[in-house]
Amino acid sequence: MFAARVEKVKSELSKKGLDAVLISSPVTVTYLTGHSGFTGERDVFLLITQDKNFILTHSIYSNVLKVEGFEVVEISRRLPPQKILLRILGKEIKLGIEENNLTVSEYKKLKPFVVKNFEISDYRTIKTQDEIELIEQACQVGDKAYECIQKYIKEGISEKELAFKLEYFIKQKGVDLSFPTIAAFGKNSFAPHHQAGDKKLVSVKFKNYCSDMTRTFVSGIPTTEQKKMIDTVFAAQQKAIESAKNRACDVDKTTRDYIKSKGYPDIPHSVGHGIGLEVHEHPYISKKSKEILKNGMVFSIEPGIYVQGFGGARIEDLFVLENNKLRRLTNGVSQN
Amino acid sequence: MFAARVEKVKSELSKKGLDAVLISSPVTVTYLTGHSGFTGERDVFLLITQDKNFILTHSIYSNVLKVEGFEVVEISRRLPPQKILLRILGKEIKLGIEENNLTVSEYKKLKPFVVKNFEISDYRTIKTQDEIELIEQACQVGDKAYECIQKYIKEGISEKELAFKLEYFIKQKGVDLSFPTIAAFGKNSFAPHHQAGDKKLVSVKFKNYCSDMTRTFVSGIPTTEQKKMIDTVFAAQQKAIESAKNRACDVDKTTRDYIKSKGYPDIPHSVGHGIGLEVHEHPYISKKSKEILKNGMVFSIEPGIYVQGFGGARIEDLFVLENNKLRRLTNGVSQN
Repeated sequence: MFAARVEKVKSELSKKGLDAVLISSPVTVTYLTGHSGFTGERDVFLLITQDKNFILTHSIYSNVLKVEGFEVVEISRRLPPQKILLRILGKEIKLGIEENNLTVSEYKKLKPFVVKNFEISDYRTIKTQDEIELIEQACQVGDKAYECIQKYIKEGISEKELAFKLEYFIKQKGVDLSFPTIAAFGKNSFAPHHQAGDKKLVSVKFKNYCSDMTRTFVSGIPTTEQKKMIDTVFAAQQKAIESAKNRACDVDKTTRDYIKSKGYPDIPHSVGHGIGLEVHEHPYISKKSKEILKNGMVFSIEPGIYVQGFGGARIEDLFVLENNKLRRLTNGVSQN
Repeated sequence: MFAARVEKVKSELSKKGLDAVLISSPVTVTYLTGHSGFTGERDVFLLITQDKNFILTHSIYSNVLKVEGFEVVEISRRLPPQKILLRILGKEIKLGIEENNLTVSEYKKLKPFVVKNFEISDYRTIKTQDEIELIEQACQVGDKAYECIQKYIKEGISEKELAFKLEYFIKQKGVDLSFPTIAAFGKNSFAPHHQAGDKKLVSVKFKNYCSDMTRTFVSGIPTTEQKKMIDTVFAAQQKAIESAKNRACDVDKTTRDYIKSKGYPDIPHSVGHGIGLEVHEHPYISKKSKEILKNGMVFSIEPGIYVQGFGGARIEDLFVLENNKLRRLTNGVSQN
C-alpha cells in the first residue's frame, strides 16, 4: 500500500519535471510510510527522488524509523536537511516542497534549489476500502464511548469532568483522540468550537484514521423551544444527506437555507468536512467548495444552531459516499 | 502581565521600523494573550500595530476569544487574513512575520506588504517569578504522578498500560500533558525518543507552562552492569549541575565527555533544553549553543546512555538558574 503511494509520488515528479520532493508535513509522512506520532518539532522529513527514497531524521529516531525502500539519513544541527539535500542531489536541482507546511525560514534555506509547490493531499480525498474500514472502526469506538458516558450526563457533572470521562474511555481502548474532547452545557453551548463551548464532541483516532461525532443532549425534559431547535438540526442533516450527490457548495447551501427558513441564524461554520488521516481535510462542504462529491469520499455533515443567551444544538455524523448514496459510519443514534 | 508583553512588542516594532506584526504561532498567541488550546489549524492570528491590537479569528471563536485591548475581527474563506490586513493597514506597509511559523503559502499571500522576520521567542528565555512558579507547579504534579504509578511498575504491565496510568493520573488532576507520555522497558529503552522506546517520561502542562521529567527504573535487583550505567547518568547530571554557570555548549561538553570517559557511547541528543510555554525552547544545552546561561533561565539536564541490545538509562530533571546556582524544580528522587 505504502510502496504504491510512493510510486504515485514518483510518477507525479516526472509529470511536473521535478528531480525530487521534500516532504515535511507529518500527515504526508504517515500517508507514505505508516509511521505516526511525531511531535511536530520537525522530527522527520522524506526525500523522494526519481530512483531513491530517504528518511531524514535525528539520530535518536534513526533506529526506530525503518521503512522498506527508504534509506535513513541522520540530520543534526551540523547537518540540517538543506545540507543533506546538497550532498545527495547537488545544486540547482528542481525540488518539490509542501508550501502548505514548510515554514518561511525553512524555505529560505533552500536557495540553492529551484523549488516548486508539490501538493499530494488530494491523493487522499477518495478513500480506499481499507481506509474506509479504519475510519469505520474509529467511529465504532466513538459510538461506544458516547454510549458509555451517557450515564454520567446529569446535572452536577462539570464539562471538564465529562470530557475527562470520555477521554478515559477512549484511551482505555488503546486508541488516540483526534481532537480535544469538547463538552459544553447550557449557555456555554453557544460557542461552537472553543474548549469550554460546545456540545459533546467525540473524536477518535484508530490506526492513524480519525472519526468525529457531535451529539446534543438536553438534561431533563426538553422545552418546546429546545425541541424545535434539535428537530431542526436533524431535519437539516437529512436535507444534506439527500442532496449529497451534488457539488459540495450546493449541499452546504441546502442545509443552511433550511435552518434559516426556520427562523434561526445562519450556521457560523461549514456544513461538513472530509476526514481521514486528518480530522479536517478535503472535501470541505462549504460555501466556496465547487467540488463534486464522489464515491469513496468520507465526510461529516454537521448542521448547528447557536443562539446567544439561549444555547446551541449540533448534530455531526460521518458518511461515506458509496454507489452514489451516503452510508452513515457513525451509528446515528436517535436524538436525546 | 499580557499588556506589558504587548507593549514590548510595540516598542520592538518602532526599533525595527515596522508598521505592524502578524503573529501566527499558537505559542506566541498564548504568550501575548493567555489564551491557549488552539487546534493548530490556524484558528487565530494577532495583528499588532503601533496603536491598535487585533485578534483575527473565525466566527466560531469570536465570542470566546476576548482579550482586553484587542479588537476581534472575523476571518473566513471570503475574508482571509491577508484581506483583513489590506483593509486595516493598506498596501506597502512594513509587516513583521514569524518566519519560523508562517508557511510558504501564507507568505506568498502577503505580497502586497514589505515583510521582515519578527522573532519574539527570545523574550521568553529569562523567566519571571510568576512563570517559574507555574513551571514548579507543573513539576509537582509530574512528581506526584510518578510517585503514584510506582506501584504499577512491575513485570507484566505493558508500556502502553503504564503510559495510560500516568496520563490518567495527570488528566485527573485537571492538567494537560505537554508531550506524549513515553514508557519503555528493557531493550526497547534503547531508542531515546520514539513512542515505544524510552524510559518513563512524565510531562505536564499547568496553566500553559510545561514540566518534563524522565526516570529510569530497573525491575528487580539491578545487575552490576545496569547499576554502573545508572550511576553514570546520575554522576553526569551532577557534573552538568556544577558547570551550569558557563556557556550552554560547555555544560553539554562536560556532560558528554564524562559519559564517554566511562566507556559509553556519546549521548545521541542534547544534554538539555529550555522549557516554559513550550516543552522545548531556548536555551538549548547543546554542542552548538554558545549562549551563556543566565539567572532566570529554566532548563532540563538529561544525560542518557543507550546501548543497542542491552538497554538505556536516562535521568532528566528541570532546574532554574538563581543567584548563579541551579535550583532543582523536579524533586530529583533517588535512583531506583
